[in-house]
Amino acid sequence: MSTGLSAAPTASPTLVFGTLTAYQRTAALRAAIDLDLFRAIGEGPGDVAYLAGRCAASVRGIRILCDYLTVIGLLNKEDGRYVHSATSRAFLDPRSPACIASTARFLGNPEMCEPFLRLTEIVRNGRSVLAGEGSVEPENPVWVEFAHSMAPMMAPMAAPLGAIALEGLSGPLRVLDIAAGHGLFGIEVAKQHPQAHVVALDWAPVLEVAKSNARAAGVLSRYEVLAGSAFEAEYGGPYDIVLLTNFLHHFDPPTCGSLLKKVNASLKRGGRAVALEFVPNEDRVSPPMAAAFSLVMLASTVSGDAYTFHELASMYEGAGFERVSAHPVPTGPHTIVMGLAA
Amino acid sequence: MSTGLSAAPTASPTLVFGTLTAYQRTAALRAAIDLDLFRAIGEGPGDVAYLAGRCAASVRGIRILCDYLTVIGLLNKEDGRYVHSATSRAFLDPRSPACIASTARFLGNPEMCEPFLRLTEIVRNGRSVLAGEGSVEPENPVWVEFAHSMAPMMAPMAAPLGAIALEGLSGPLRVLDIAAGHGLFGIEVAKQHPQAHVVALDWAPVLEVAKSNARAAGVLSRYEVLAGSAFEAEYGGPYDIVLLTNFLHHFDPPTCGSLLKKVNASLKRGGRAVALEFVPNEDRVSPPMAAAFSLVMLASTVSGDAYTFHELASMYEGAGFERVSAHPVPTGPHTIVMGLAA
Repeated sequence: MSTGLSAAPTASPTLVFGTLTAYQRTAALRAAIDLDLFRAIGEGPGDVAYLAGRCAASVRGIRILCDYLTVIGLLNKEDGRYVHSATSRAFLDPRSPACIASTARFLGNPEMCEPFLRLTEIVRNGRSVLAGEGSVEPENPVWVEFAHSMAPMMAPMAAPLGAIALEGLSGPLRVLDIAAGHGLFGIEVAKQHPQAHVVALDWAPVLEVAKSNARAAGVLSRYEVLAGSAFEAEYGGPYDIVLLTNFLHHFDPPTCGSLLKKVNASLKRGGRAVALEFVPNEDRVSPPMAAAFSLVMLASTVSGDAYTFHELASMYEGAGFERVSAHPVPTGPHTIVMGLAA
Repeated sequence: MSTGLSAAPTASPTLVFGTLTAYQRTAALRAAIDLDLFRAIGEGPGDVAYLAGRCAASVRGIRILCDYLTVIGLLNKEDGRYVHSATSRAFLDPRSPACIASTARFLGNPEMCEPFLRLTEIVRNGRSVLAGEGSVEPENPVWVEFAHSMAPMMAPMAAPLGAIALEGLSGPLRVLDIAAGHGLFGIEVAKQHPQAHVVALDWAPVLEVAKSNARAAGVLSRYEVLAGSAFEAEYGGPYDIVLLTNFLHHFDPPTCGSLLKKVNASLKRGGRAVALEFVPNEDRVSPPMAAAFSLVMLASTVSGDAYTFHELASMYEGAGFERVSAHPVPTGPHTIVMGLAA
């Protein structure tokens, strides 16, 4: 057609409508988690009256919420009763060891969500509307929430990261865990390697969470904390391994480069800088979760991004690392990027 | 397993994460519409520099936004340039006659969105947190926005509704269009039937929009307006057809029943009450759009719902209608429900 505007067979107004109302999906899942609905689904007969009583909620509200959660694939409905889907049983019932319901607290934190209400302005200006350095402003309390609530989502990545970081190493090792957060990654290295001594670096209130997790994991005697900024703290060292998990994406390439130089200086020759990152392909639009993460960095930082492997390798090499390698994590959307100090 | 909590093969943490971050999809599409990005995509070479200039936005912002829109299926990326997908070409480029971008204004109206920020409380209490009668509080200005911005989404339903309402009728007809909004449905009946005279009922500021649309459609000489509440206005009549489009779902069944009695009294014997509704199947969890609509009614009304055909037929029959029939609209998620005045 002359206008070039005719719809191809796959054109879908439903995709437009579904996107404009996608925020309702988030609201429904948050409400269900708040109401402890998934525990009730797992324990009970699953009829509306039971669930309403168990969640101290109205019959109308529970019925409509459960129907909606069924529509979006998070519950099943059988003979008028609501039962777990495979997904809700594994990842939303608090009795499941794989439950990630707590992530709703960080992902729903106003600091992370509110910038999206002003996304037009953010796209215009090219940076977060959050004050100062955005989510990485010093001592931002959002990272305490991250440490508390995001560990279950990161847990599946810990074992593969530990294995790659430690592969072929033996004897006493010193490990620095930069932006340790919940501490899971450094703790995992300590668990996998009984001669590893871990120094966890983060803001002091965040380190309380990491220490508590290290105690629970039985590695506290080999766990040390260093409070402060990754850019300003004296790292000590020399280290065999430095972990940089979910950190580089908050900053622009020159800042990442400076940090990697500092990391390099703290490593023994041949020591390993091990990052965990969302790494999109060179097209920057696949795979979906890694590529989509850039938008979170646009909304919440001044100049962060989800970097391609090519970009990360340049930063590493510019900071004096060699043999930079990428290891996609089979159990999650992340990629482990490792370089050796030259 | 004894816990009953093991994950089936289809269990997906990605579905949980994707739902908790689904609000970002809404934000991205709203921002793109605000920035007039889809017009720029349709007109230009689609490189980041061009789009940033055209949208008066930053390069970083546009690049990340366009990549994100590509990830969620709303744009395509070819050799580093962004081009329309079939969906964005047909439904988001303002040059397309089928463009529904304006619906973002109603769907993103704070009155419609903000209750979802308090959905836990709404599920507990079983009703909207909006004051009074919620979205159907008298003279609520949200319906002026609806009339202005939702017409393109309703347009594909107008022709089928007109055809069903008019089937087999001839000669002069009087038509009442209750809660006329944009007026599209009554106007369509007037266009399909040159001897139809339409009375449009709605709040006065809403009727300004309907009248303007009737003028543009060339039917103003057969178009009359009646300002007020559907529950309180004198309908006049007798009518051959009464339209009730997107209206019954805002109220509970007794209220719908009373209204249908009033409608019945205004119709000639054998006259037609023609509703356009989201009608879920008896399972209330399919088809997706109709079933999901209940949540909007939970969030924005005191006691509205998306009713099944069985429930609607009961309301009609209780109000003295017979031969109640359902006609799913092939061009949209709605169903036309018609009953004849006994």
